[in-house]
Amino acid sequence: MENFQYYTPTKVIFGKGTEEQAGRLVKEQNCSRVLVHYGGSSAVKSGLLDRVFRSLEQEGIRYVSLGGVVPNPRLSKVYEGIELCKKEGVDFILAVGGGSVIDSAKAIGYGMTNDCDVWDLFEGKQAPSGCLPIGVILTIAAAGSEMSNSCVITKEEGWLKRGCNTDYGRCKFAVMNPELTYSLPRYQTQSGCTDILMHTMERYFSTGKTMELTDGISEALMRTVIRNVKILMEKPGDYDARAEIMWAGSLSHNGLTGCGTTGGDWASHQLEHELGGMFDVTHGAGLAAVWGSWARYVYKTSPGRFAKFAVNVMGVSDYSDDVDKTALEGIKAMEDFYRSIGMPTSVRELGIELTGEQIHELAYKCSFKNTRTIGRFQVLNMEDMEKIFTMAR
Amino acid sequence: MENFQYYTPTKVIFGKGTEEQAGRLVKEQNCSRVLVHYGGSSAVKSGLLDRVFRSLEQEGIRYVSLGGVVPNPRLSKVYEGIELCKKEGVDFILAVGGGSVIDSAKAIGYGMTNDCDVWDLFEGKQAPSGCLPIGVILTIAAAGSEMSNSCVITKEEGWLKRGCNTDYGRCKFAVMNPELTYSLPRYQTQSGCTDILMHTMERYFSTGKTMELTDGISEALMRTVIRNVKILMEKPGDYDARAEIMWAGSLSHNGLTGCGTTGGDWASHQLEHELGGMFDVTHGAGLAAVWGSWARYVYKTSPGRFAKFAVNVMGVSDYSDDVDKTALEGIKAMEDFYRSIGMPTSVRELGIELTGEQIHELAYKCSFKNTRTIGRFQVLNMEDMEKIFTMAR
Repeated sequence: MENFQYYTPTKVIFGKGTEEQAGRLVKEQNCSRVLVHYGGSSAVKSGLLDRVFRSLEQEGIRYVSLGGVVPNPRLSKVYEGIELCKKEGVDFILAVGGGSVIDSAKAIGYGMTNDCDVWDLFEGKQAPSGCLPIGVILTIAAAGSEMSNSCVITKEEGWLKRGCNTDYGRCKFAVMNPELTYSLPRYQTQSGCTDILMHTMERYFSTGKTMELTDGISEALMRTVIRNVKILMEKPGDYDARAEIMWAGSLSHNGLTGCGTTGGDWASHQLEHELGGMFDVTHGAGLAAVWGSWARYVYKTSPGRFAKFAVNVMGVSDYSDDVDKTALEGIKAMEDFYRSIGMPTSVRELGIELTGEQIHELAYKCSFKNTRTIGRFQVLNMEDMEKIFTMAR
Repeated sequence: MENFQYYTPTKVIFGKGTEEQAGRLVKEQNCSRVLVHYGGSSAVKSGLLDRVFRSLEQEGIRYVSLGGVVPNPRLSKVYEGIELCKKEGVDFILAVGGGSVIDSAKAIGYGMTNDCDVWDLFEGKQAPSGCLPIGVILTIAAAGSEMSNSCVITKEEGWLKRGCNTDYGRCKFAVMNPELTYSLPRYQTQSGCTDILMHTMERYFSTGKTMELTDGISEALMRTVIRNVKILMEKPGDYDARAEIMWAGSLSHNGLTGCGTTGGDWASHQLEHELGGMFDVTHGAGLAAVWGSWARYVYKTSPGRFAKFAVNVMGVSDYSDDVDKTALEGIKAMEDFYRSIGMPTSVRELGIELTGEQIHELAYKCSFKNTRTIGRFQVLNMEDMEKIFTMAR
């Protein structure tokens, strides 16, 4: 087992009606001037924003608001937020939304406390030395950004997507009311659950050192998501199923499912990242589209690990005399599951017909012009990437 | 599922050689004058204390030290610590040891930041408003105090044992090197593992609302502890087994295994508490001695819950037509396990022959002179307690 660090300082307030505590929670942080940051109109229409404003007012906390954050949150909005925060003397940012809104809030927070162009932090030109305190009212269970250290922003000029992941960016609190996710479109729920599963699967598939307890937790988490998203296909307003998935989303990406391991594979994420750069793809759906092809391409590196996944997560029979068979049936079972919840298992099912030229370009970009490899379970070069994209097409 | 709050701000630094980071970690907290608090001579003899001192010196941090903390840590030592800290202008307490040392450190920290007799906080006469920052170098995997909010101190006058549990007392960091637990006496290892299991079992046995993900995590944790303590019976220096148990000890009591449930039962802990008050009993061993009798006394309240435990944790066959049989076989399997690791499953095996009068006195004290009940799985009055002690005798 590897040495590890585990740090999750975010205070979680989980359950029905918890958004009413927003004001109290900000006050507990000794802050008094808040930027309420949000995405589209659903937070307005549902009345959620008004409830949050009221909760702040009840504690005598002044606030300004800034909406309009889009998926793959943009640098221009971050600049707008920084300017507004400086003008208004904001000392706390309250993100009301999902991963995009949270990441945009974190980026504004970095910009407020670091004396440089905030994009320099994302390009690695400077290391951040702090971040304004951030709180979250979570409305989408998927990205896990509410408890993770990660923050990903897209610069429109050149469509560059870059991350700035530090403990400074960990939220002070996360309010999670599963009821707030009832109104999510079906496809967003399914895609979100895929994202949650993949955050654990990327860490689970390892040829290096692992930890038995971490494996057990990860397997329980994946079984829970698979069982409960099926429930939501029939009953999108099932509170308990929404709650299981919301909590799984946070635990999947807060570090718990990686303790003692060698750090995860993340090749599927890199491959999807390029797809998402070239086409308009929902992150979770893109992951589902490439995962099976990645898995079949690499499983022989450690068929035993895939067989463990097959038996403990997917409930496949253990053909102990034929570990490859068990491994492959596990991959098939996962793809069958994806299809059963309306997720694609090929790029074509995303509505994209990849040409050979496009596949070459995807691999060329993903390999940084053939200068880097990706993946840890099996290290993949540009040629490997082309083959996987071809399998996934 | 119940609403819940989850807050574990403690930064965990886990693995080989991590105690060398003590100085850096204190410096990260912007503290400069440390009380190094420890128990007996083992930390001195093993050279651990010297390594910790060196690490502090390398960062230019001044320190004083105070040893002599005993199991069931005493109020007199807490007063001694407070006096020393005030005299020396201490701004950080570094506990080097297990639960007793950590709890003693927390109590000193409370005493330093609250303007009253520290015992008033334990008697509930005043609510704490803060605590000096605490860090831990953990040497015993058992109590889970390194990540929990709990702190239990014994006042020698009247042998009163009281708790002060607040988020202020959560440690800033916990350094966990499994190698530091190699030299633990066998009985301490076994008893510690029992304590770890019981922290999860007390939360797991519930007739109220539960959370599927929490159940899955709890079951994985219990299976992990059971499997790995057996390994340690043969190979006390097995690094991976020590690490699994050390991490399980923290997760078992940091709140994770209670998320979404109705708060746990804790009757076995209350019964053991009285035993420990009357006789010299190691906490974990005392829990093992009473648990089976408690379980047989209450299981009919929800045999299905015990059957789930039997199948998912103890690997008992699921006699689906006879849930009572499955439940009882699970209890028996747990007791067989305890015996297999040298733990008692009756009070007699602790070397104590309880008289009827003593049993009455234990129940009388545990029920606060017949004025309170204990337990949530099944609410137990004084008469119930007498019956359970009689079964366990």
